[in-house]
Amino acid sequence: MAQKGDLMTARSDIRVLDATIRDGGLVNNFMFSDDFINALYRTNVKAGVDYMEFGYKASKELFDVNKFGKWKFCDEESIREIVGDNNSDMKISVMADVGRCDYKKDIIDKKDSVIDMVRVATYVHQMPAAIEMIEDAKAKGYEVTCNIMAISNAKESDIDQALEMVGQSSADGIYIVDSYGALYPEQIRAIADKYTELGEKYGKYIGMHAHNNQQLAFANTIEALSHGVSLLDATMMSMGRGAGNCAMELLLSFLKNPKYNVFPVLRFLEDYMLPLKETGAVWGYDIPYLLTGRLNQHPSAAIDFCKDNRKDYADFYTDLLDK
Amino acid sequence: MAQKGDLMTARSDIRVLDATIRDGGLVNNFMFSDDFINALYRTNVKAGVDYMEFGYKASKELFDVNKFGKWKFCDEESIREIVGDNNSDMKISVMADVGRCDYKKDIIDKKDSVIDMVRVATYVHQMPAAIEMIEDAKAKGYEVTCNIMAISNAKESDIDQALEMVGQSSADGIYIVDSYGALYPEQIRAIADKYTELGEKYGKYIGMHAHNNQQLAFANTIEALSHGVSLLDATMMSMGRGAGNCAMELLLSFLKNPKYNVFPVLRFLEDYMLPLKETGAVWGYDIPYLLTGRLNQHPSAAIDFCKDNRKDYADFYTDLLDK
Repeated sequence: MAQKGDLMTARSDIRVLDATIRDGGLVNNFMFSDDFINALYRTNVKAGVDYMEFGYKASKELFDVNKFGKWKFCDEESIREIVGDNNSDMKISVMADVGRCDYKKDIIDKKDSVIDMVRVATYVHQMPAAIEMIEDAKAKGYEVTCNIMAISNAKESDIDQALEMVGQSSADGIYIVDSYGALYPEQIRAIADKYTELGEKYGKYIGMHAHNNQQLAFANTIEALSHGVSLLDATMMSMGRGAGNCAMELLLSFLKNPKYNVFPVLRFLEDYMLPLKETGAVWGYDIPYLLTGRLNQHPSAAIDFCKDNRKDYADFYTDLLDK
Repeated sequence: MAQKGDLMTARSDIRVLDATIRDGGLVNNFMFSDDFINALYRTNVKAGVDYMEFGYKASKELFDVNKFGKWKFCDEESIREIVGDNNSDMKISVMADVGRCDYKKDIIDKKDSVIDMVRVATYVHQMPAAIEMIEDAKAKGYEVTCNIMAISNAKESDIDQALEMVGQSSADGIYIVDSYGALYPEQIRAIADKYTELGEKYGKYIGMHAHNNQQLAFANTIEALSHGVSLLDATMMSMGRGAGNCAMELLLSFLKNPKYNVFPVLRFLEDYMLPLKETGAVWGYDIPYLLTGRLNQHPSAAIDFCKDNRKDYADFYTDLLDK
């Protein structure tokens, strides 16, 4: 595909989604204070962010509500305590994991909900279940995306088939998800071309969710953007599992649309993200994440390595090579 | 230009230059221990690094030798104390700044020196002086590059003329230098096309020296590479002025040539870079560097901001916008 847009003009199709609570919640078990979430909501509205994701719709049958903050479950009333009826231009999203969400019960009709969008997260091998969830959410009235995870680790022929399945579904958008932070810009451009081609065929937009294992989350996000991807995930100070995500402050600094404003984000970083880091929440680029990313592996071993405060990078790499 | 190489094969023209002492020395006034430098030399040889830069050839008339470590001056005997006659495949480089180097006196004939390459660093407006230094070093027998700094802040017509001047000089290579960390991958690809086209015309290779203000140093380095650039600067744990450079561990993990080996680098990070950080040397991506990079400004204000341990990012940004 030819490049879409340039570095001087603003593209009206571009939208930004703040995933700080949802991906960042994987760092601290969603234990955010109400003050933090309130300030984040106000910040995103002021910054011109288009969507704010409040967390997961996780099954209370599978997960103990006493072991996680409320944003793992995103009850309707929890969100309303923060946003009221959400009298803003910003939309609210939640993520629903295939196999981890009692969606028939826990996702209510859109007319009764302050939530605007449901993002269905799936692995390639779970596509039939994902399609069922997509159709359920769509029938209830939501905007719906399908986020196919860990594609760096899936067969291209399986991805192609999964894309055809989503293409023929009612989903509004399809996400490129680099779960392991393993993909290089050159690969992202080719993947973006493939996804946007399919998106154009079926009338669906394409999103990008990057991880920063190799310091490429921002680069991959803007490269996907320049190849037609239009819904961009970012998190405050890149907070997210392991190496974290594309930093909101980098993305909003880059985007040219005057509706975006990085100032409130900078204030939020000073007032909320630095104090959060001081409580011991750890995320962001580090050597062990580079190594799992490079080897196209799940970051779990690197997360354990960091938690154990280990620094023997070479031995860790040797262990990874044996896996 | 068409893409050069791909993600599966190794390109034989690619070479890696370790600039840890030279750019990292700007962080700690070149106060490295001999043990550190010895270990770095051995590490680079084992890792397959092609060039190791020992520092600057700075004028002792202009700079007080008591205020800087010896690698700001790179006396012949200082280097020989580490490398002897350098019985390795790795070449040794030094950087000579236009206007800050007594090159006629301090750069001796190659036949009497263990140094292999002289990199002449210049701003666009200093080109006649740079050419004089290039011809001097070339006549003395060295491999010579011309590193035109701060190009994000120079007029394109001036850069074009500077490139023509270097093209017609005896320089062996020409560097793309993103001093302010201001350039995006899309721009780097266009610049790489321009430089490599000129390089092909005049028989010169092209190098890349990136800064990490917007977490793009590695991305920009591999994007330049894929557009024909062949000499790539990196530093251990990205040590360098302000936001630092392209990290050696990222670059060697990426390159496919089996002559490169990231293991000794990982050991060096554990054994030397982490302890160096603990002594208080501070560098690497941080919000203030993002902001100066975004605004295409010299990082000096951000360096001061970090030294003062300030965290008022939004006020800092307001100040920068007034500059």
